[in-house]
Order: sequence, then C-alpha cells, then structure tokens
Amino acid sequence: MKVLVLHGPNLNLLGQREPEIYGHRTLDQINEEIEVLGSQLGLQIDFFQSNQEGLLIDRIHRAHGVYEWIVFNPGALSHYSYALRDAITAVGIPTIEVHLSNIQAREPFRSHSVIAPVCVGQVSGFGTASYLLALYAIFEQVGRGK
Amino acid sequence: MKVLVLHGPNLNLLGQREPEIYGHRTLDQINEEIEVLGSQLGLQIDFFQSNQEGLLIDRIHRAHGVYEWIVFNPGALSHYSYALRDAITAVGIPTIEVHLSNIQAREPFRSHSVIAPVCVGQVSGFGTASYLLALYAIFEQVGRGK
Amino acid sequence: MKVLVLHGPNLNLLGQREPEIYGHRTLDQINEEIEVLGSQLGLQIDFFQSNQEGLLIDRIHRAHGVYEWIVFNPGALSHYSYALRDAITAVGIPTIEVHLSNIQAREPFRSHSVIAPVCVGQVSGFGTASYLLALYAIFEQVGRGK
Amino acid sequence: MKVLVLHGPNLNLLGQREPEIYGHRTLDQINEEIEVLGSQLGLQIDFFQSNQEGLLIDRIHRAHGVYEWIVFNPGALSHYSYALRDAITAVGIPTIEVHLSNIQAREPFRSHSVIAPVCVGQVSGFGTASYLLALYAIFEQVGRGK
Amino acid sequence: MKVLVLHGPNLNLLGQREPEIYGHRTLDQINEEIEVLGSQLGLQIDFFQSNQEGLLIDRIHRAHGVYEWIVFNPGALSHYSYALRDAITAVGIPTIEVHLSNIQAREPFRSHSVIAPVCVGQVSGFGTASYLLALYAIFEQVGRGK
Amino acid sequence: MKVLVLHGPNLNLLGQREPEIYGHRTLDQINEEIEVLGSQLGLQIDFFQSNQEGLLIDRIHRAHGVYEWIVFNPGALSHYSYALRDAITAVGIPTIEVHLSNIQAREPFRSHSVIAPVCVGQVSGFGTASYLLALYAIFEQVGRGK
Amino acid sequence: MKVLVLHGPNLNLLGQREPEIYGHRTLDQINEEIEVLGSQLGLQIDFFQSNQEGLLIDRIHRAHGVYEWIVFNPGALSHYSYALRDAITAVGIPTIEVHLSNIQAREPFRSHSVIAPVCVGQVSGFGTASYLLALYAIFEQVGRGK
Amino acid sequence: MKVLVLHGPNLNLLGQREPEIYGHRTLDQINEEIEVLGSQLGLQIDFFQSNQEGLLIDRIHRAHGVYEWIVFNPGALSHYSYALRDAITAVGIPTIEVHLSNIQAREPFRSHSVIAPVCVGQVSGFGTASYLLALYAIFEQVGRGK
Amino acid sequence: MKVLVLHGPNLNLLGQREPEIYGHRTLDQINEEIEVLGSQLGLQIDFFQSNQEGLLIDRIHRAHGVYEWIVFNPGALSHYSYALRDAITAVGIPTIEVHLSNIQAREPFRSHSVIAPVCVGQVSGFGTASYLLALYAIFEQVGRGK
Amino acid sequence: MKVLVLHGPNLNLLGQREPEIYGHRTLDQINEEIEVLGSQLGLQIDFFQSNQEGLLIDRIHRAHGVYEWIVFNPGALSHYSYALRDAITAVGIPTIEVHLSNIQAREPFRSHSVIAPVCVGQVSGFGTASYLLALYAIFEQVGRGK
Amino acid sequence: MKVLVLHGPNLNLLGQREPEIYGHRTLDQINEEIEVLGSQLGLQIDFFQSNQEGLLIDRIHRAHGVYEWIVFNPGALSHYSYALRDAITAVGIPTIEVHLSNIQAREPFRSHSVIAPVCVGQVSGFGTASYLLALYAIFEQVGRGK
Amino acid sequence: MKVLVLHGPNLNLLGQREPEIYGHRTLDQINEEIEVLGSQLGLQIDFFQSNQEGLLIDRIHRAHGVYEWIVFNPGALSHYSYALRDAITAVGIPTIEVHLSNIQAREPFRSHSVIAPVCVGQVSGFGTASYLLALYAIFEQVGRGK
Repeated sequence: MKVLVLHGPNLNLLGQREPEIYGHRTLDQINEEIEVLGSQLGLQIDFFQSNQEGLLIDRIHRAHGVYEWIVFNPGALSHYSYALRDAITAVGIPTIEVHLSNIQAREPFRSHSVIAPVCVGQVSGFGTASYLLALYAIFEQVGRGK
Repeated sequence: MKVLVLHGPNLNLLGQREPEIYGHRTLDQINEEIEVLGSQLGLQIDFFQSNQEGLLIDRIHRAHGVYEWIVFNPGALSHYSYALRDAITAVGIPTIEVHLSNIQAREPFRSHSVIAPVCVGQVSGFGTASYLLALYAIFEQVGRGK
Repeated sequence: MKVLVLHGPNLNLLGQREPEIYGHRTLDQINEEIEVLGSQLGLQIDFFQSNQEGLLIDRIHRAHGVYEWIVFNPGALSHYSYALRDAITAVGIPTIEVHLSNIQAREPFRSHSVIAPVCVGQVSGFGTASYLLALYAIFEQVGRGK
Repeated sequence: MKVLVLHGPNLNLLGQREPEIYGHRTLDQINEEIEVLGSQLGLQIDFFQSNQEGLLIDRIHRAHGVYEWIVFNPGALSHYSYALRDAITAVGIPTIEVHLSNIQAREPFRSHSVIAPVCVGQVSGFGTASYLLALYAIFEQVGRGK
Repeated sequence: MKVLVLHGPNLNLLGQREPEIYGHRTLDQINEEIEVLGSQLGLQIDFFQSNQEGLLIDRIHRAHGVYEWIVFNPGALSHYSYALRDAITAVGIPTIEVHLSNIQAREPFRSHSVIAPVCVGQVSGFGTASYLLALYAIFEQVGRGK
Repeated sequence: MKVLVLHGPNLNLLGQREPEIYGHRTLDQINEEIEVLGSQLGLQIDFFQSNQEGLLIDRIHRAHGVYEWIVFNPGALSHYSYALRDAITAVGIPTIEVHLSNIQAREPFRSHSVIAPVCVGQVSGFGTASYLLALYAIFEQVGRGK
Repeated sequence: MKVLVLHGPNLNLLGQREPEIYGHRTLDQINEEIEVLGSQLGLQIDFFQSNQEGLLIDRIHRAHGVYEWIVFNPGALSHYSYALRDAITAVGIPTIEVHLSNIQAREPFRSHSVIAPVCVGQVSGFGTASYLLALYAIFEQVGRGK
Repeated sequence: MKVLVLHGPNLNLLGQREPEIYGHRTLDQINEEIEVLGSQLGLQIDFFQSNQEGLLIDRIHRAHGVYEWIVFNPGALSHYSYALRDAITAVGIPTIEVHLSNIQAREPFRSHSVIAPVCVGQVSGFGTASYLLALYAIFEQVGRGK
Repeated sequence: MKVLVLHGPNLNLLGQREPEIYGHRTLDQINEEIEVLGSQLGLQIDFFQSNQEGLLIDRIHRAHGVYEWIVFNPGALSHYSYALRDAITAVGIPTIEVHLSNIQAREPFRSHSVIAPVCVGQVSGFGTASYLLALYAIFEQVGRGK
Repeated sequence: MKVLVLHGPNLNLLGQREPEIYGHRTLDQINEEIEVLGSQLGLQIDFFQSNQEGLLIDRIHRAHGVYEWIVFNPGALSHYSYALRDAITAVGIPTIEVHLSNIQAREPFRSHSVIAPVCVGQVSGFGTASYLLALYAIFEQVGRGK
Repeated sequence: MKVLVLHGPNLNLLGQREPEIYGHRTLDQINEEIEVLGSQLGLQIDFFQSNQEGLLIDRIHRAHGVYEWIVFNPGALSHYSYALRDAITAVGIPTIEVHLSNIQAREPFRSHSVIAPVCVGQVSGFGTASYLLALYAIFEQVGRGK
Repeated sequence: MKVLVLHGPNLNLLGQREPEIYGHRTLDQINEEIEVLGSQLGLQIDFFQSNQEGLLIDRIHRAHGVYEWIVFNPGALSHYSYALRDAITAVGIPTIEVHLSNIQAREPFRSHSVIAPVCVGQVSGFGTASYLLALYAIFEQVGRGK
C-alpha cells in the first residue's frame, strides 16, 4: 500500500521554527520516523514538501493512480487554499489532514480548515506524532475495516 | 499508565444509531477493541458513558489523581458544554478529544468544539479507530517523548 | 398507536410560572386533557417530564421500539441541546416539536430551535392546545396519510 | 365563526410542484378537505389564493369585520414581506401561519419568517394537514379557551 | 410645480390601523391637509396609494416628465423593495422619503431603508406632519435654493 | 424549440434609465435583436415584461408545458424575491439568469441573487448582449450537448 | 414657545467645510435664517455650538425647564455618543434630530444614529433647510396636534 | 430573611482548580465565610452545589416560597443555560448573579451571560468576596430600600 | 486608604432622570451615603463628576499616587470610551466598575462595556447600593485578602 | 483580434475530475472547441493553464499589449486571490470570468468571487459552453458595439 | 513649512504608562526629539496634547491656514471618534496618523482606525520613532514629490 | 547591517499599473532610490520581487542568518497569505510591512492585513516614500534604540 506524505509551506523549517510550538526535530528526522513506522505497518511512503500551493496541487494530481492514501499537513494553506481542496476532491484519493499543533487552541484564524471537509479525518495537536497517528489510521482502516 | 475513556450522550446507542455515519459496532464491542489495543500498548483503561453532562463532569473530577490521560468523545456536548471544558481545565489531566465522524464535513454547528481548545489534540473521522488512534497518541507521546 | 409526550425543563411549574405567557393549567391538568383527546383519537399516551437534559435523552432512547410518535416540548433546551437533537435522530421515531408560546414573538434567542430540523414539524403559540394539535397531527397523518 | 384561508404565491401549483416536498393533492382538493373539517368544527371558511403580495394585502384588509380568524400560508413571502406583516397587524384579526413543509429543515433562508412574530402561532411540516391543524387550533382556542 | 404624493402598502387603512402609532386621521383627511398646504405653497399635488409594489413602480414611471418632485411613504416596502429604489433612480425625479412614525425607534428591521440612499432626504416621526414637512422641504429647496 | 424571455421591474424603461449603466437601446429594440438572433439559432421566442412580482410568477406558471427554456432578467427582484425562485423550481423549466450590468461590480446588495441557485447558469455584464449570450447558451447546450 | 438649536462638532466650519456636501452658508447665516423662520412661526430660539460632547450634554441639562423643544444636529457624534442619547432621555425634552446631508447616502457608518431612537423624529438631506423643516415640525405638531 | 446560595458546575473543586484564577479557599471555607457574614447581617443561608443543570433547576423550583433571595454562581452554565434562566423567571425569586473572576477580562465567550438579564444584578471579579458582596447587596436593598 | 469615586455623564441629574430606572436620590445624597459607609469602613473618599470624557481622563491621571482605589460609574461612556479604558490602564490604580441599573437587562448596546476588561470587577443592578457594594469590595479585598 | 484563454488550478484534470459536475471533455478537447468557434468568429486564441497563482499572474502581465481580451476561469482561486484581481486591473485588458458550474448553486464559499468586480462580466453554469459564450460575448461586443 | 504635532488622550503620561508597550521617554523628551529632527529637515513644529476630543477638534480647526501638515497620534480616539475624522476632512490639511505600538498586533478593537481613511498615510509600531518617520514622510513627499 | 527588500505580486508593473494610485516610477527606479538612501544610512540592501507566494516564502527562509531586517510590501497577498505570515514568524527576522497606497482608504478588503500582526510595524500611504520610511525606521531603531 503506497502512501504520499505531503508537507505544506514552512514545514521545511521544522526544528528551527518556533520549537516551543512545533518541536525540535527537523523535517528529515520526522520523515525518517514516519518511514520507520510505515515499514512496520507495511506502508510504502513517499515524501514531498513545498512552499508553493501550485506545486502541491501538481503533486496531488500526479498521485492519482499511484498512491492509495495521502497524509497532508497543509500548514497555513489550510485556512484559505480552496484550490488544494479541489485538488484532493479531483483525484479522489482518501486524505488525512494532519497538524503538529492543536490548531483550535491558537489564533482564531487557525481553527478553521477549508480542506478538512473533503478529507477522511483530521489529527492535530500531537507534534510529530500526528503524522504517525495518520499512519496508524490507515493501518486500522485498512487492516481491520472501518 | 491509567487512561479514562469517556463517552458522551447518545454513544450508548452505537451500532443502532445512524450506522452509515457511526458504523455498526456497539459501544461494548468498541470498548473491547480499545481494551485490547490498550493492553498491547501497556495502558490500563476504564470506561464511562453518560447522557448527562453533570455526571460526565463528576467523573472527570473523580479522575483527578487516578488517571494520567483522558480520551473523551463528548458527542454533541462538544458544541456547547463550556462546563465540561472547565472540568477538564480544573483537573488538569491531559485530554484527547475524539470523534467518530469527520465533524468538519457535516452540519456547520458540528465544526466548532468548545472543548478542543483545552485538549492536547483532536482525532476525528476514523470511526471507532478514532479511539484507537488516541491510544496510539498516548503511547507515542509517552513512549517516545513529544 | 403509542405516543410518548415529553415535557422539558420548567414545565413541571406550569400554572404557577408566568401564567400570562404559559396559561393557568397545571401540567397534570394538561396531561389529563391530552389523555382525553388521545383516547378519542385512538392514541395511547405516556408522559415524562424532567428538568435534566440527560434524563430526557435516556427516556428518548428507551422509547425506541415502544412508541410510534414522540410529542416533545423541549422548553429552553430547544435553543442549545444538540444532544437532544442527536437522540431524536438516533432512535428514528417521528417527533413533533411543541411550544406553548409563540417562540418567534418573544426574545430573539427563542426564535431558533436546534431540534426543529430533525422533527416532522412544529406547533407553537396555542398554549396547552399546542399539545392537542400535535395529537391531531398524528391522527391526520396516520388516519389519512400525508 | 368565519375563517379566511389565504394561500400565497405558487400554492396554486400544489400537486404539480415538487410533490416530494409538497405532496400530491391539488389546491382544490386541499380546500375541499379544509372545508369538510371546517364544517365538522362549525367553521365557515372562505378561500383566496394569489401570487401577488399586494392582492393578499388587499384581501386581508377586506377581511376586517368579516372574519374572526385568518389561516395563512404566505409561501416564500414569509421570508421578506414586511408589508404582509403590517397588514395583519393593521386589521387585528388573529392569524395562524401555516407551512406544508418543515421550514426549519430546508434551506437556511426558509427558517426565518418575518410574519410569525405578529401571528398567534405557527404550524409547519405536516403537509396539507398543517391547514387542518390550524382549524383544530381555532376550534380548541374558541371551544375551550386558551 | 407638480408634486406626486405616493402612499405604499397599508396606508389606505390609516386612522384604523394601530392609531397609537400612526394617528387617527384617515388617508383622505391627510391628503386633504397635504393639498391645503400644497396650494398655500404653490404646489399642485396628485395622490396615489397602492398595496402593490408593481403598481407603485408603474406610477413612478408615468411620473417622468410630469412631476418635479415625489413625496413617498413606501411603508414596509422601504425595508426590502430594491425594485422601487431602481424605479426612483430610473426616472430621476427628486424624491423625499416620508414616514409617519420614527422608524429608528421601533423594531430593528424598520431602521434600515433600502430606498433612502437614492432620495434627496428623509423625514420621519412626525405623524401626518411628516408629509407636510416634505412639502415645506420642496418649498424651501425651490424657493430659496439649497 | 420555444423560449420565454422575461424582463423584470424597470426594464421597460431601458434606453431612458441610467444609460451609462444600462445602454441606450429600448426594450423593443432589444427584443427585436433577441428575436433576430433567435430565428438564426432556430429558437422561437416570446417576451413578457412586468413590474409586478406576482404577474411574473403567473407568467412563469403558464410557461409550463409550453416553453423549453426561460431567459430571465429579474432586475432588482433578484435580490429578494424568494417567491420567483420558488416559481422557477415549481415549473421545472431550465432558466438562465441574465443581467445587463456586472452586478458584482456595483452596490454590495446587487452581488447576491436569491434566484441564481435554481437556475442553470448566469450571464451578467455584457449589456444587451447578455440576452444574446443566453440564446447562444441554449443553442450550445441543445445543439451540441453539455 | 422656546426652542434650543444645538449644533455638534465641526458645524462651526459650515460654509468652509466640504461645501459640495454641506453647502456654502456659514453657521451664523444659517442661524439667522432659522431665527427668521422661527419668529414667523412664533418660536423663540437660542443657539449653541460645541465641538465637545461634554459641553453639549451640559447644555442639554440646562435646557430642562427652559425649552419646550430641542433641534439637534449632533454631527458625527450621532454615530457613537450614547452619552448624548442619555442626556436627551434624562431631560425629557422632545428633540428633533437634524442632518444637513442625507446620511443614508454616504459612508455606511453614517447611516446609523444612536441618538435617533430617543428623538421624536429625524430630518436629513435638505441642507440648511433641514433645520427649517424641524421648526415647521414643531409648528405643525404644536399648532395642529400630532 | 432566608437566602439560598447556589454554586454551579466545577465550583466543588474550588481551592484545587486554577488557583491563580479562582483563589485558594475551598468551597466549604467559602460557605463558612458566607455564613459568618450572613449571620452578622441577619440572613439565614442554605447552600447547594451541583454539576448538573437539571438538579440546579430542581433546587431553584423548591426554593419557591422558602427563600426571599437567591445568590447564584452558575459557573460556565452562565453562557448557555437558558433553562436555568427560565427557572429563575418561573419562581420569581430575586436573584443575584455572582462570579469569582472578572468574566469580561477572560475568553470572549465568558463575557456574555444568558442568565444576567433576569437577575436583579451582577457582581463579578472579587474572588470569594463576590459572594459576600451579594449578601451586602441584599442587606442594603432590604435594610435601606432601593 | 483613599478612594476616588468617579461619576460619568448624566449622573449629575440623578433623582430627576428616569427615576423608575435610576432611583429617586440625588447625586449629593448618594455621595453622602457613600461617605457615611466609607467612614465606617475606614475609607477616605473623594468625589468627581463630569459630563466630559476628557476631564474624567484628566482626573484619573491626577489620581495616580494619591488614591489606592477608583470606584467608577462611567455611564454611557462605558460602551465606547476606549480612551477611558487606556487611562485606567495607564495609572494602574485598581478600579471597580459600577452601574446603577442591571445593564444586561436593558438595550443590547448597554450589555457591553469596553472598560470592564481593565477593571478588577463589576457591580451592577443594585441602584445606589452598587456604589456601596464597591466600598464593601475594597474593604473585603483589603481587610481579608482576596 | 487576439484572445488569451486562461485556465486556473485543477482545470488540467477536466474530464477526469468529478465529471458529474465538470463534464467529460478533457481540457485539450475544450481548447479545440474554443479554437474552432474562435476561428469562426475571427478571434485568434492562445491558451494557458497553471495550478500556480504566480504563473497565472506572470501570464497576465505578459498579455499586456498582445491580447485585446482575456477569458479567465480562475477555478478556486476566484474565491481568495486578490493578487490575480490586481493583475487584471494592472494590465487593463478587458476580462471575462468563466465558470463551468453554476457557482451560486454549490457550497456557499463558491458564490463569492473576488475577481468578478474587476471583470467586464461573468458567465457561469453552462459547462464547457461557458467558454464559448465568452467568445460570443467578445464577438457581440466588438462586432455590434455594446 | 509648518507642521502641527497632535497627541491624543493619555499620551501626556508617556514614560509612566505601560513602558513595555509605549517606551520610557516622556512626552516632553519625545517632543524634543521631534523638534530636533524637524529643524534638521527644515520643518517648523508646534505641539498640542489633550485628553479631550473636543479640544483636539478645536485645535485642528485653528490649524487651517497655518499649518501645511498635521502629524496626529489620536490614541484610543482612533477607534471611535468620527468627529475627529470630520475635523480633518473639514480643514483639508494633509494628515499622517501615527501610533507608538503596532496596533494590529494588540487587542482586536485597536486594529481598526476610523480616522485612517481620511489621512495621507499611517505609521505604527516604531515607538517614538513613529513620529520621526512622519517627519521624514513629509520631507520625502515635499522634497522629492510623491 | 543587511536589509532585504521584498516586493510581492504585481509590483513588477509599477509605473505602468494604475499610476494614479501607485505613482509613475518603475520598480527599478524605486529600488535605486531605496539603495541610495540605504547607503546614506549605512544599510546594505538586497532586492527580490516575485508574483509567487511560494518563492517569497523561500526567499524569506533563505534570509535567515543573512539579513537583520526585512522590508516587505506583500501587495495583495497581505490580505490572505497566512503562509507568508508563518514564514516571517519562522525565521524571526524583524519585518516592516510597507504599502504604497493608504490601504485603509480603499476597498474594505484592503484594510485588513494578516501579516501585520507579526511585523514590527507598518508604513502605508506615502507612495514610494513608504519604502524609504522603512529604512529610516531601521536607522532610528538601530541608531537610537527604540
């Protein structure tokens, strides 16, 4: 089972950026952790990070027919990118929205995601473990049925 | 490590109530599944369900000093029970909010939780697996650090 | 045909509470009137009043498989109890929302019911006759088809 | 006791228009049903339908001194015709607002009636039985007092 | 100088309708008063009342090239008739909006007029004198310049 | 193929009314243009203009079974006439909403049409060509399939 | 009959300030005009202008028992001075709100007056004639009854 | 003179719960303080705490005819319990709303109380002294007249 | 301990102004009552009333280093004077906001105070006793600790 | 006459993406159809599609001095890209906004376009014919004058 | 070139008031700094501070014909004083709004200035340097053209 | 001291685009002016312009450890790019937001910047001098302390 893990804008700075909110691990370290758990759960994982909405859309388009799941942390694009929302709907790949921080406990604008309504579900607030939970979610949904 | 799993109003009807939204397993079956995974992850789990906001508050109060984590599906009380929110803050036990359905993909009133801002994080949309993910979240946060 | 008549918070005080708005008959007298008309229309009626949201939810749950209709005056819970709304949806019993006063002619907060969208219909403003009209509604819908 | 039954815009199409929402009976058939029940309850009933707000206002004006009650389904004019609202207030005839469908369970704009606040009460959601309930309401209010 | 005095819906009931708000004089008496003052001020006045938005629009259209001023009490149509607003703009005749009652001291919906922005000015709250003030306004604006 | 072209309030004044916004051609000239293009495209066209919401509703009702398409410029009624909206839904004839001006570039109230959601599509901003485009739209949809 | 004419902030600049909106006459010239008409109508008039909310309140307080009417142009204080509103209510002197420009045809913030609800009525849009109309209003209301 | 002091949800945790906001005294200690001052002021005081909205309503009902005043800290129920509001209105006992913290200086949702409009007055922000002030308020109002 | 009692606009009219809302005592009588209780409680009190926002700000500034507490009834300035709010923050003297009437039970605009968030607490609804309660509050807070 | 046809994000997926909403033709097929009609109408057409807001802006900039018209389907960028809006204004080329679906009949966020106010007009709801209508619009506006 | 520097309410306390927000320099020290830079840039500067809206308006009026520029820190009056806004418009002197703190990064009410729309521009967030930047702005605009 | 000057979308068109709003100088000319003043003030300046949000984010990321200040005109991205806001927070470089026009005096959407709350301050309305003022701001803050 192939899974595409997408990281949106500013996530390339993880480990440097506001560590009290986003933790101290770098994106590479996080990807490694994700890969380790993925291989334990029998998931083959590819990664993509971009600060550009358009390149994220392109990547989602190319995922069509290749990946069975997308795990997506859209970063701040969550709050306004209807184009990303449409991309997810367009390719029809089940997607899990992931956030490192608890977006409902921060500035008001962060509590609303325009992408969530077209996703399977949402995991937020567990730091880098949020990504891992998304893998468990795929594992649970696939391995045991919903 | 002791975990209290709390189910809010109408969750006692699981398996009967709108199965196309909430799935076919009963609450007992779900609790059993939770227990199984819990014991695999080294978590000792107790359960409580009530349709009464006040009894849920009482139960949260009595959890103080007994449980290290609460996994809480507040059901529709999520959308207005500021009293439950205060109960969680009052006892200071880290709490994970859980929803079976993707609350952001349903009626508008369901997309806003007054309880989420005082929780560690939120998991929603994975059916009964939402509870299991909360256990994994505790496991990940405890076993590996944040 | 069995009908459950549910009275929400503060309706136990009928006859004492603001009689210029709610009339002078007590809840027992109203229940008696309802029973009389019910037996004329061939409806077997049970009654339940509670000031507790949770007990009303419990009562609705137990109605499943017993009653064909619910006539429900949720009182002020109409305006915020999404948990009661979910209880009605969960048991799937057709429900008629009833209000003694014309809720649209009073304070603004009273004009919005979170329960109405999951009911068959609403009757408001006719004092204790609002309950009687709900019985006629059942009679008309059953006896004559919609 | 004389009652004026007023039908607002588009109700002349009943039976043809969206039968899954409004039912299969034509306006004439409904008027006949109303008349039958009316004569059982000792009510003398006249009917008027118009697609024109202004003619409905004229008809309400001429009702003054002739009818003791108005049963009014304002159709979509419910949502914006403050002029109809003023007409009802101006003639001072107690009026019951009636809707075939449960207006609170449809598009958001339908849940607000600018006419309801000046009516005695509201009956909605029971198909053509909504009109019959209005007659019962008059019967109950007159025959038994409020 | 020719002036058209337009009365909107329900104003034909003046003297009967809620006299504590609108006063005791009938529309004919008011028109007479207006005429008397008009002839004192050298204004030739015609009157038109209708409960129909469309007929008021027609009347405004026919005013083009005949009247130099319109004095208009749109009644409750003030609050939603963008079509009347467009009619006034279309004919380009300077119009004075008139209200018997102080519309800012009543229900909130009455404080907003969609017609006011295309009028020269507004006079409200002086009972039937509101019309007379509109005549004085024309007299002052014409006789003395603005 | 028969098409009904409906013109709402104030459109009878075209050519006189605010020509900088609505152009210099009269309604008759526009209708003539529409007819010419219609006959080129094989469309048989009838016209109706009214300043009265109710007469427009009546006309839409009578279109049932006669016309395959309606081209409708509701004028300012676009912004509040839920009754016209219901009339279109009731007769089930595919309808194209047309505006001379770009309603999104004018006063805020003009950017919202309560009628658009029940139409096939909308054409706005091309002056009298907006009507012609609606004919092309019918031609394209019919002649070539969607 | 004694009348106090109050001018709020910036009205001392009349004649200089944005003459295309407020006209070319100075405040002294306007006061003179007011006085001339006042004496024709048998009204004895005093004037007061201040740019200070507090001094306007003081002046209204001292008006108690001296003046039978206040004619008040609160200028921009109309839009936020609840303190002036309370002052008018406190002294109980019937007050007419006056505006030179049509406040409903300008910036949105100008269309709402917090003072209007406690006034007898409002006159706006007639330039300096707005004040004169207020005098006529007093004359009409006094001389002829409301 | 008998006074009922009511404590809403989570107040049983006082002294433990967020002491930087709610202070260090337990509810028993606070009740004792209240009792001491009460007896100094000649007030006989009973206490009731519950985390259940319904039991608070029941207690208010039973207060009818027994207590002359209620001092009520509804906790977070202040912000949504219209049912408690109705209970207070129903029994007609003058009630003083009390809050330990300054609810206007915290999260926005806390600044609005649905209960305040049916109370005599409100005291908030003085820690446990808020209750004592309510007793002084009763003493002042009774002993000296309003 | 020195306390400054500040009265905002229109409070100089107390006893004359709307006595059914504000009571019959004059400001001097109220100040006397405040002084009597103050001396009982060991508080030395000075008074200042002004209808001018700016003079109130000046007075608050001069209070710095002289008074330990301010008791402030800002009158209608409560609802918009952010400048007064800043003045209180600037001098850093603990301030108690006081209102004679229950501001939450009157017009909607009165329920919001821009000053409350920077005060220690608020007392409203007890007539002139509201001021006395503020003194008790100081006494309780100082004499007993919070 | 040269025309630039711009397709925004996700339109490259046409034919695959939600065909029940967007139809079965691919973007190439649609471009071909557009080209065919263009050449019939004497319009020389170039095409550009991008999922990147910035590249669309670049393309609009380069259109300056080359194209006389832009036909633009901004996709979901319509709802938030003020930068695209500014690009259109900056180059001053008349632009027609085009949507395949009737954006007013879908999710609420789709009914508002931030780009529409700077366009000549809008065509929406006719599937791929929406583009063709835009060509007819250019043809009509150019060939016949507005 | 003469410049008037206006300081609004509470700015007289600079250096004492919340130094973590507003810095440690007193108003006199700031004025001195402004003067020094002014003389370097060839600007002759006068200063005025008041806590009274009305005196600030008076000062702006008297600036007419004397000063070519106004540099204005309206303090908290920025958020509601439409009267100051009108004063600036009335005298027609180009005005630069200045704030010490970044008003967009503080309480929500501070992010909206009713005065900004009639100013040339705004400088905020640079502490006392905000005033100096305003002088540079005048220098740049005058010395080099816009 | 190194400063990065960032120009957002459409600013490459300066001099061509709406010169009545944005002035006649091209971006190169403006950059030259900035450079000249920069070298006078001892600031070493680099420039970057892009129409792509993502490339601006990339550029901000690479600024980390290189530049001490960013001067940023985000153009229309100011109004929705939460991703840019996060980028600024992530790198932690003090940033000054700059706008050529007074954004508070134009369309309502322009008055709100989502980027301003994470900047040091904002300068708007001075044409190309806005950039120069930002340099002066750095100079003043660095050279003289805040």
